[in-house]
Amino acid sequence: MRESLSTSRGAAPTRRDVAKGSGKDRAEPVTADDLDMISGGVWSRPGFLVRRLHQIHYAMFFEECEEGGITPVQFGVLTVLARNPWLDQTAIGYEVGLDRTTAADVIKRLEEKGYLERRINPEDKRSRQAAVTEKGAAIMAELQESMARAQKRLLQPLSPRDQKLFMSLLVELVEANNQYGRAALRSL
Amino acid sequence: MRESLSTSRGAAPTRRDVAKGSGKDRAEPVTADDLDMISGGVWSRPGFLVRRLHQIHYAMFFEECEEGGITPVQFGVLTVLARNPWLDQTAIGYEVGLDRTTAADVIKRLEEKGYLERRINPEDKRSRQAAVTEKGAAIMAELQESMARAQKRLLQPLSPRDQKLFMSLLVELVEANNQYGRAALRSL
Repeated sequence: MRESLSTSRGAAPTRRDVAKGSGKDRAEPVTADDLDMISGGVWSRPGFLVRRLHQIHYAMFFEECEEGGITPVQFGVLTVLARNPWLDQTAIGYEVGLDRTTAADVIKRLEEKGYLERRINPEDKRSRQAAVTEKGAAIMAELQESMARAQKRLLQPLSPRDQKLFMSLLVELVEANNQYGRAALRSL
Repeated sequence: MRESLSTSRGAAPTRRDVAKGSGKDRAEPVTADDLDMISGGVWSRPGFLVRRLHQIHYAMFFEECEEGGITPVQFGVLTVLARNPWLDQTAIGYEVGLDRTTAADVIKRLEEKGYLERRINPEDKRSRQAAVTEKGAAIMAELQESMARAQKRLLQPLSPRDQKLFMSLLVELVEANNQYGRAALRSL
């Protein structure tokens, strides 16, 4: 079900099978051929593919959980807190993959929705902790199935065996690199 | 090199091996145990892991390409255009995984930097096309190695064989789901 241009992956850099439109009236623009680089195109780059798969998951999550008014990251924060009540905000951010500012922001939004309560850490006044409320637990219960469906759909194209394989490689990669990258990901 | 809390993956939902701080003076908050759900935690969710790996790639890309002042998405747009000169904006967005508005925005930024030139499609006044300039080609050439290093580092924790396997599963998943998810990914 490949839908991208035939040149977008796998093609040798010398191929140019996309019509160049009517560029003839202008100076010929620089192409990969001229540079002898960008050999595989974006589809040869794990970073590109991982970003696309991330986008695909977001789209599926919102399709499945539309009525919930909650994002995958918010669901992740609720999940971590349901398992670790009164975790402090820094640790929540670490667990879910958010920098300090973004974690505080997401937690505040969840509190405004009534899904979390926050308090000052009784043992350290500088630290803030959070826990899931009854209302938060209810929305999690309500959305649990839809969320699981979104996860399932993401891997559906693979055989059950390959799904397991993919998950184990994914876990290995994230574990090994877990110290990296908790920024807000907003740069385009 | 796992650095997350021991409860953050794999643990049975009944385990509670994170200290609950001093929550005893408040009503006991709702936990996963009470709900009998969220069984595997975030680490059992492909969507979570893919998002983390995406973040990790961004961090590595910016570490490697810091001096370039360019984002992975911008590099992707340049790559697609170097291979497909005078592609129109809608197709660029499709190839790189951007909705129409975001694609226009990214292309505008690249034009402002002098890396792209734009024109109106001579065959369709409503469509805008872009191509890489000499300056754009130069920045690509300059950053090519750093970009490749970021890609390589992302998969480095796996054996060469597993890297190939992971890439092929990733391609399979993105191809099969390629119609999904070209939104801006800004929701947290």
